[in-house]
Amino acid sequence: MNTLDSEGMELAAALQEHAPRAPGMEPHLHAAITQTATALGSLLRARLVLSAARSHELPEAVALPLACAVEYFHAASLILDDLPCMDDATVRRGQACVHRVHGDATAILAALAFINRAHVLIGLAYAAHAPAVRVRTALLLDDTLGLAGLVGGQARDLRFGEGATDRREIAVIAAGKTGALFKLALILPALAVEPSAAEFRLLKALAVYWGQWFQACDDMKDVIGTLMNAGKDTGRDQALSRPNLVNALGPGAAQRRIDRLERQLARTSRNLQALGARWNYLAEFHAAITGRARARAA
Amino acid sequence: MNTLDSEGMELAAALQEHAPRAPGMEPHLHAAITQTATALGSLLRARLVLSAARSHELPEAVALPLACAVEYFHAASLILDDLPCMDDATVRRGQACVHRVHGDATAILAALAFINRAHVLIGLAYAAHAPAVRVRTALLLDDTLGLAGLVGGQARDLRFGEGATDRREIAVIAAGKTGALFKLALILPALAVEPSAAEFRLLKALAVYWGQWFQACDDMKDVIGTLMNAGKDTGRDQALSRPNLVNALGPGAAQRRIDRLERQLARTSRNLQALGARWNYLAEFHAAITGRARARAA
Repeated sequence: MNTLDSEGMELAAALQEHAPRAPGMEPHLHAAITQTATALGSLLRARLVLSAARSHELPEAVALPLACAVEYFHAASLILDDLPCMDDATVRRGQACVHRVHGDATAILAALAFINRAHVLIGLAYAAHAPAVRVRTALLLDDTLGLAGLVGGQARDLRFGEGATDRREIAVIAAGKTGALFKLALILPALAVEPSAAEFRLLKALAVYWGQWFQACDDMKDVIGTLMNAGKDTGRDQALSRPNLVNALGPGAAQRRIDRLERQLARTSRNLQALGARWNYLAEFHAAITGRARARAA
Repeated sequence: MNTLDSEGMELAAALQEHAPRAPGMEPHLHAAITQTATALGSLLRARLVLSAARSHELPEAVALPLACAVEYFHAASLILDDLPCMDDATVRRGQACVHRVHGDATAILAALAFINRAHVLIGLAYAAHAPAVRVRTALLLDDTLGLAGLVGGQARDLRFGEGATDRREIAVIAAGKTGALFKLALILPALAVEPSAAEFRLLKALAVYWGQWFQACDDMKDVIGTLMNAGKDTGRDQALSRPNLVNALGPGAAQRRIDRLERQLARTSRNLQALGARWNYLAEFHAAITGRARARAA
């Protein structure tokens, strides 16, 4: 387990501060929520939102809750993905999965609590912004969390094999399951500064590439990783007939695709930075995430 | 199955119009969403929101989506409540439960799709309202959907028996599981007209009484109803050790409590109507819901 840097420590504290709670809450649900709020992953999405929000000079009282909200959507999706009826996982982030410790019902309720909390945090964060920002926020949430995004991607992932199983379907699934939250993390904080049409196009393209690249690295890790390094179950995509780019293309072709996605990522990021200094945080973020991915794959 | 009145038909159409969808959505999830959007219950909460919104002269483009949003939260909670790990039900609204037809995973994803959609609809409906309204909306959603509301109530309901099982705990559970969505239905449309402190107090009191009364009637139906009349499983509270006022107090004492709640309901509703004509829709609504409950219990 890595020691947290200062940004990580800020986020760790915020994730606990903003976690769903109420006086006298049922103890098992409380424990499930605590496990979720404290079992930190890379905090990649939260860090992205926080960097973006700070770069766009949003107040701290907005930046941290926004970062938590996106991380909560991610955490909730992991709880549900791990359920017996979904991927039936045992381990997540080096611990027993939430449903294994607290039961399926409590796990589902914990996920719901985080999802609702996340919507509330975003509503509060942007309550005083212009109506156009609020409308775009709502539409972005619809697009990234719903049938065109996270939920839709997971539905296709579960049914992989019943329809097309080619790399196109794998890409569509990755766009939903993985790309959607990158899109949310990239664009949500940016909405506050009302990007131009060109900036929007590049942000969306960046999110697509990141989602595909991130999922492809994950697919690679599933095939070649070990349980001890991954902290979660591996080799399961094959076992569960889940979409996996490496299984579909073979490791060589998959690695070439990963390399090409990295070049597309870098180019898109540079193009966006060329449009204004307010996108410079992307360079640093890009280095951090590709560096981390290489370390994980090693 | 009752023929819908004109308000019911408007809502039925709106519930389908605003249902989560996306091009090329996974077919099983599509089917689960369609079942949910078309298997109408009493539409009680939707009707309440619609009556309130129209009485407060909100535009139709706001009134109908708000009504759908609350009904979607309710529909999603029913899907999840019926899951094997929760109440393990077989029948809902005279049909096989969503998870029985489409599987647990698809049912969970459908519920999530409706929950996310509902948040989006509310965000869009109030996007142009004052910041104070949007802040209150977010806090109301936090209070009614989270650990102090729906999710918290369900968590306690599932663990009923592990802690206190007295009428106080039964009331706390009812407040969460049932009262919360009445509170949301009553207050959400009212926020647009910025009620006074006195009006807020009465609205909240009304929601509490309605929640308790509605759940108590449901408890009575569970004990004395039949499967054919109810359209859902009955006699299950005892079997599953779920909180049930009639099982706790006996039918006589429970009926006296129901009668007292009806008097409290009527009095609170009158007090609110005395504060302004804009609350008059409550009188009509009150008559409709108490009449319907008596018909169900017959």
